[in-house]
Amino acid sequence: MASAVRRLKGLVAATFTPMTTMSDLNLPVIQQYVDYLIEKQNVRNIFVNGTTGEGMSLSVQERKMLAEEWVKHAKNKMDSVMVHVGCLSLEDSKDLAAHAASCGADAISAVSPSFIKPSSQDALVMYLKEVAAAAPSLPFYYYHIPSLTGVRYQVFDLMGKMQKEIPSFRGVKFSDVNLMDFSLCIHNYKEFDLLYGVDEQLLGALACGAHGAVGSTYNYLGKTTYKMMAAFEKGDLLKAQELQVLFNSGPVQGFLGTKAKMILPPLKKKHLHLCAS
Amino acid sequence: MASAVRRLKGLVAATFTPMTTMSDLNLPVIQQYVDYLIEKQNVRNIFVNGTTGEGMSLSVQERKMLAEEWVKHAKNKMDSVMVHVGCLSLEDSKDLAAHAASCGADAISAVSPSFIKPSSQDALVMYLKEVAAAAPSLPFYYYHIPSLTGVRYQVFDLMGKMQKEIPSFRGVKFSDVNLMDFSLCIHNYKEFDLLYGVDEQLLGALACGAHGAVGSTYNYLGKTTYKMMAAFEKGDLLKAQELQVLFNSGPVQGFLGTKAKMILPPLKKKHLHLCAS
Amino acid sequence: MASAVRRLKGLVAATFTPMTTMSDLNLPVIQQYVDYLIEKQNVRNIFVNGTTGEGMSLSVQERKMLAEEWVKHAKNKMDSVMVHVGCLSLEDSKDLAAHAASCGADAISAVSPSFIKPSSQDALVMYLKEVAAAAPSLPFYYYHIPSLTGVRYQVFDLMGKMQKEIPSFRGVKFSDVNLMDFSLCIHNYKEFDLLYGVDEQLLGALACGAHGAVGSTYNYLGKTTYKMMAAFEKGDLLKAQELQVLFNSGPVQGFLGTKAKMILPPLKKKHLHLCAS
Amino acid sequence: MASAVRRLKGLVAATFTPMTTMSDLNLPVIQQYVDYLIEKQNVRNIFVNGTTGEGMSLSVQERKMLAEEWVKHAKNKMDSVMVHVGCLSLEDSKDLAAHAASCGADAISAVSPSFIKPSSQDALVMYLKEVAAAAPSLPFYYYHIPSLTGVRYQVFDLMGKMQKEIPSFRGVKFSDVNLMDFSLCIHNYKEFDLLYGVDEQLLGALACGAHGAVGSTYNYLGKTTYKMMAAFEKGDLLKAQELQVLFNSGPVQGFLGTKAKMILPPLKKKHLHLCAS
Repeated sequence: MASAVRRLKGLVAATFTPMTTMSDLNLPVIQQYVDYLIEKQNVRNIFVNGTTGEGMSLSVQERKMLAEEWVKHAKNKMDSVMVHVGCLSLEDSKDLAAHAASCGADAISAVSPSFIKPSSQDALVMYLKEVAAAAPSLPFYYYHIPSLTGVRYQVFDLMGKMQKEIPSFRGVKFSDVNLMDFSLCIHNYKEFDLLYGVDEQLLGALACGAHGAVGSTYNYLGKTTYKMMAAFEKGDLLKAQELQVLFNSGPVQGFLGTKAKMILPPLKKKHLHLCAS
Repeated sequence: MASAVRRLKGLVAATFTPMTTMSDLNLPVIQQYVDYLIEKQNVRNIFVNGTTGEGMSLSVQERKMLAEEWVKHAKNKMDSVMVHVGCLSLEDSKDLAAHAASCGADAISAVSPSFIKPSSQDALVMYLKEVAAAAPSLPFYYYHIPSLTGVRYQVFDLMGKMQKEIPSFRGVKFSDVNLMDFSLCIHNYKEFDLLYGVDEQLLGALACGAHGAVGSTYNYLGKTTYKMMAAFEKGDLLKAQELQVLFNSGPVQGFLGTKAKMILPPLKKKHLHLCAS
Repeated sequence: MASAVRRLKGLVAATFTPMTTMSDLNLPVIQQYVDYLIEKQNVRNIFVNGTTGEGMSLSVQERKMLAEEWVKHAKNKMDSVMVHVGCLSLEDSKDLAAHAASCGADAISAVSPSFIKPSSQDALVMYLKEVAAAAPSLPFYYYHIPSLTGVRYQVFDLMGKMQKEIPSFRGVKFSDVNLMDFSLCIHNYKEFDLLYGVDEQLLGALACGAHGAVGSTYNYLGKTTYKMMAAFEKGDLLKAQELQVLFNSGPVQGFLGTKAKMILPPLKKKHLHLCAS
Repeated sequence: MASAVRRLKGLVAATFTPMTTMSDLNLPVIQQYVDYLIEKQNVRNIFVNGTTGEGMSLSVQERKMLAEEWVKHAKNKMDSVMVHVGCLSLEDSKDLAAHAASCGADAISAVSPSFIKPSSQDALVMYLKEVAAAAPSLPFYYYHIPSLTGVRYQVFDLMGKMQKEIPSFRGVKFSDVNLMDFSLCIHNYKEFDLLYGVDEQLLGALACGAHGAVGSTYNYLGKTTYKMMAAFEKGDLLKAQELQVLFNSGPVQGFLGTKAKMILPPLKKKHLHLCAS
């Protein structure tokens, strides 16, 4: 009944996918990864197999194994596990959605297909509807990331249609710099979760009313970001700005940071030669 | 000595260019326009011959007449008149810069050339340096509007060069949605004016530390925007958000609004068939 | 040893994927489709599971079934069956490449990944090398279609690297309007097949030396295109131009044309709401 | 009556603007430049103040001085002088058009405004109509160069409107890689001049029926290009291809080539820090 994730608040780490030096999945690391996020970053929600996790570059089988492993270790420890099931293929997306439900995920999310693209807003919503319907009990989040998909429909123009057509529609992972679109969604669709996804300007999004955020930096800057959010909440803008700028300028020493390295074995990326930009 | 505009704060209206129904300049309207901005919108700074004013679509001669008229009526009434002198031609830009100084403007600003473009960041800064040097006594503001110029260098990467090369460099009219770039500039170049230019997401920019803003909506929403800024300042985020969203959703009834229409004759646009998008 | 396709000449039909009205694969139609292409269009080469065939929007399993069926019916009747194995996932591409070899395809081809993209020319070539190595006995063709992938490296810059790194490299399906790049490839890499893929300007490509072409229009305009090629070959430019323009202006009545409809049951497209542009 | 240029055939050199080392116009060089084009390159048509000539980066006054000087020296020696009068400002364009007529130019051409852009195809045609009407006795050519203007309307969609609205409309300088659009124009508007403007793929355009071409390379490769055209005309495709590729790969030693350098003083570019790409 789309109720597993009541109201997604706070930070969601878009998890990296741990690999061995042979470019195979490094599943045993995941348990430590979960503990690290909770204990060291205070992060209690994860977004699995998204852009950060290179989900689109993995096979369906690999994605299923990852989803299972993350759910297994995060269950009862974390607040929620959202599994990204978007693919170029509708069949694959539906397959992944059904699998996410069966293995105990709390929510699913999907991007628009980006090679052959939806021909209209309605076409996109119909596509997402079919994906969501493959896991009707899980809250569904549209993953908006126009810089990578090239699908640039304003989310505000889609919200009403998604609300009407997709019974399990619950919100959006909004990874775009257009804060006007974001504001219109937040203000006019208060009952949905609008999770902001451009870490570098989260502070701007907070001012516009963002309750939650999904991103890769929360893997290693979760605690610091919570500090920024707290500073913002109590009106200490200067401190909030300082922390936001710190993230943006600071050289990140390895993608899990120095502390993480002490705990976790080095996380390899699968396709080091691919990059999301 | 780049001191006329000490510290530009608050709202700057990017003025429309009044036209007659015959597409000629309607200069006599300008006096009323100035009074209207002050009295009805509480706006005390103007940005003349910019994108809103269709400056790039006017001849050099027309731009000079407009600059003179705006300065004549705003002098002593307003806090500052910034004249946009950017052109495709360096000679024209220098001509307009020198003219702005001679007629009493308080500051100048220029976009990058956008047909034949600068081949590097340094080339752009050298270009702007020559423009600024034609009016050495006036504070100079770089006008960053990549959606129209196609010149996408991050402003943060230009700041140091402009500071070093352009003695009269004073700040940037920043008309882009990238708040990370904007934040980095504000935080690292505190002594410069970073005027935000995307009205639709000013609230986000305020959170990042914006002190001032330039835009077309402040012609008719100046007072309301000041209310939003006040709400933000005293921590009433909900009200600030409500006001920001109001601007973004509301149908604007004629570009000077209902009240303006009572005071001013209708402002025609010159090239109704051109549009900035 | 990359010899199955000795020298690909003439037209290659990029086949549509037949669907039932229920959006399932309509495999039984494929035998008729093959006969139709040979008998009615004089087309003896096919490119399966490409953009026209919506291969990127199908699951790995569907693509395998299609490849098998096309090979089964085209074997011994057609000159060659090239199977497109490009995916977002390297694992899936390798899987499809190996499958293509095992089921008797004559050649394989792959696009660059387009969501998470190669970070350099070398990264792209390394990726393609791994795909090609999964079917080392089959000639490999790089599928260049920057308008859809967003991967815009000039092919001429890649040719030497692909020749050096990929033993089975045999040529390129070149689907771009840049004829300078195309010409440089043809002239400097005479031993490779440069198959032109923008049907609407094939005549221009012929002048630049194209020996072969791959495209969707050859499904229903194969015979007419051969007429254009013959006219061009014997110097009757006016007739060639007339025929080229005819294709470009003519309303295509159903994507397999009137004659095809008499022979084949209507070919449904799977994702009618997706479109490649 | 738009008859000065009856039918523009062959090559048109888009002239560079000679500058002194002080970045001033170097007008005295123009006489030699004209003689050089005729004698060494066999080029008898010029396109003045276009992209190659950096016309858009010059002031109106500079453009007028250049137009006069080119006309003065080319008159009676060359077949035609076409002056580019396009600007961001309609007033300036009209001024330049009237001036071109008064100083004896044979034709004019104009790009679309590119900062504030036409809001529709009709708006663009109305704009061009006003420009053309300022020099009603001169044949008018629309200058289509979407890579620089960002105005991407297919020329084929504009042809009928321009024919209907602009009495002096005579043709198009077509600087785009889309040969389908080019072919449709040539085939359906046989009485107009479609001058091809992407030198690097002229051979492809010849196959589509191009009668003439305008470009920067014809300043130094005019004679060689005529050889390519002759080879193409008599069916020697291999030689034509070889020559086309030669232009595209050859390092051009100084923009007027070695021979030119012996005759002319070095031609400086005005804004060396700007580049058209």
